[in-house]
Amino acid sequence: MAPRLPSGVLAAGLTPLHADLSLAHEPFVDHTRWLLNHGCDAVLLFGTTGEGLSLSVPERRKGLDAVLASGVPANRLLVGTGASALPDAVELTREATRQGVGGVLVLPPFHFRQISTEGLFRFYDRLIQAVGEPDLRLYFYHFPELSGVPIPFSVIEELRGAYPDQIAGVKDSSAEWDHTEALCHHFPELQVFSGTERLLLHVLEAGGAGCISATANVTAARAAQVLRRWREDEAPGAVQETLSEFRTAFAPLPTIPALKFLLSRRLDTPDWATLRPPLAPLADAEKETVLEIADRLAGEGLLPAPDA
Amino acid sequence: MAPRLPSGVLAAGLTPLHADLSLAHEPFVDHTRWLLNHGCDAVLLFGTTGEGLSLSVPERRKGLDAVLASGVPANRLLVGTGASALPDAVELTREATRQGVGGVLVLPPFHFRQISTEGLFRFYDRLIQAVGEPDLRLYFYHFPELSGVPIPFSVIEELRGAYPDQIAGVKDSSAEWDHTEALCHHFPELQVFSGTERLLLHVLEAGGAGCISATANVTAARAAQVLRRWREDEAPGAVQETLSEFRTAFAPLPTIPALKFLLSRRLDTPDWATLRPPLAPLADAEKETVLEIADRLAGEGLLPAPDA
Repeated sequence: MAPRLPSGVLAAGLTPLHADLSLAHEPFVDHTRWLLNHGCDAVLLFGTTGEGLSLSVPERRKGLDAVLASGVPANRLLVGTGASALPDAVELTREATRQGVGGVLVLPPFHFRQISTEGLFRFYDRLIQAVGEPDLRLYFYHFPELSGVPIPFSVIEELRGAYPDQIAGVKDSSAEWDHTEALCHHFPELQVFSGTERLLLHVLEAGGAGCISATANVTAARAAQVLRRWREDEAPGAVQETLSEFRTAFAPLPTIPALKFLLSRRLDTPDWATLRPPLAPLADAEKETVLEIADRLAGEGLLPAPDA
Repeated sequence: MAPRLPSGVLAAGLTPLHADLSLAHEPFVDHTRWLLNHGCDAVLLFGTTGEGLSLSVPERRKGLDAVLASGVPANRLLVGTGASALPDAVELTREATRQGVGGVLVLPPFHFRQISTEGLFRFYDRLIQAVGEPDLRLYFYHFPELSGVPIPFSVIEELRGAYPDQIAGVKDSSAEWDHTEALCHHFPELQVFSGTERLLLHVLEAGGAGCISATANVTAARAAQVLRRWREDEAPGAVQETLSEFRTAFAPLPTIPALKFLLSRRLDTPDWATLRPPLAPLADAEKETVLEIADRLAGEGLLPAPDA
């Protein structure tokens, strides 16, 4: 089965909010489109970076509708549909699948921290059964540092056996190269994405699909250069290095507030500065650091223009 | 301000499910009423034990409606209204408050693990503002082992200062007596509940309100004896010991599956045996252990009768 979702560079798209904390559809759609026109093969909506779990089911549904209504090809969207309550995950997954999205990215439910392997299997199994859509393309979201619930190979294996056409890939946000590499080798038929563009070249060389990254909101064009050079066998190493340097520059900062602050300044749009609790605004010193990074990114032509 | 929620013994009520995983209203209402008639001063609905975060917003709303429609006094209910998405927490909290419940128990949002103290404050602050009900009675749900997000005293202090009539108490599920004792001493005007009946007598002696416990689904009558003896100065120590022994007996088991299995056998009701993923059924050896405990509990007259 050929994947519906393009491999390559994906940004974990940010979600702008109005001052009243409601989703700001216009800049949300604009930014998603900008990413797809500036280096992203596809965009993840409502991942961790997109504050997906901070949004209600109706908010995620309407946000997806707004992006699709703007004419973005549905297959270029990966949609975060994970939820602690199974019925919520079913509703979001079914809806996104019926809209023809490239795939859905599903976190394990992690409100009970110590769940068994059997419990984890049961969750995904019931989800797939309840969604009942042959067109489902499910990507596992492995992010143990956040969720505390790793997704063992055995669970992927078993679900892949049961639903060979519907299990499509993995986003590995463990940031452990050994784990990502093992996924690439163990599941060559799945699309394996790393959660950071630092590992992009490694993933490509290991036969993986690419990366899905928070900082790709502002570095996607550079990541796309790595991908192009790798595909054309043009020594991508140096470009990967500058790409990784940008990622490293963000390391000491709270990623989501930093990226939103950067876009709010760059685009002069207050909706980008709004953070839904439990996120909190940057300290002044952190803002200074972000503005320095922004200058360097702008100097390399990586940022959206205010009138874009 | 006198609390609306009674102090004393609260069970963290279980949530029975039909085979299709939907909430089984009839046994849910029956069990809640049985608890209130057999030792519980109040019942927590949709806490961790009640699989609250595994239920959608509409499921929690309809479940509460069903219990209230049965004639249970609203003030004898504490309702878990925490959610990772602020709008969900607002909706559930507002609805429960308008129904006149004794209080709402609100977990910190924990999908972003490393949230700042400011972010935590902002979540509760926006919640209280958005709910906009002077009758709100909010109980903090401190459960760091589960959530990874402790609720610092400073956050309670600051919110108590801002909303003195609406911050009503804390459920301390840390199982660390030093922490519970410090809460009792630091916030004498709040109702402090321990998350286990093992600490019931300690909490009462420290001026706290009582306990809110999973195993109180089957031990409440014994816990109520501890409370009565303590109030009447009748040497409650020995009863506390037998109470603690029952709690200890459950320690090696996954609590929720064990309690649900126990009730399914005792009441011969299949709806009690259903577990919503990510929970998984007990292993056979665990079932044996549960049946042994059940015999002892039944021998002490603590379990509901099949026709109750």
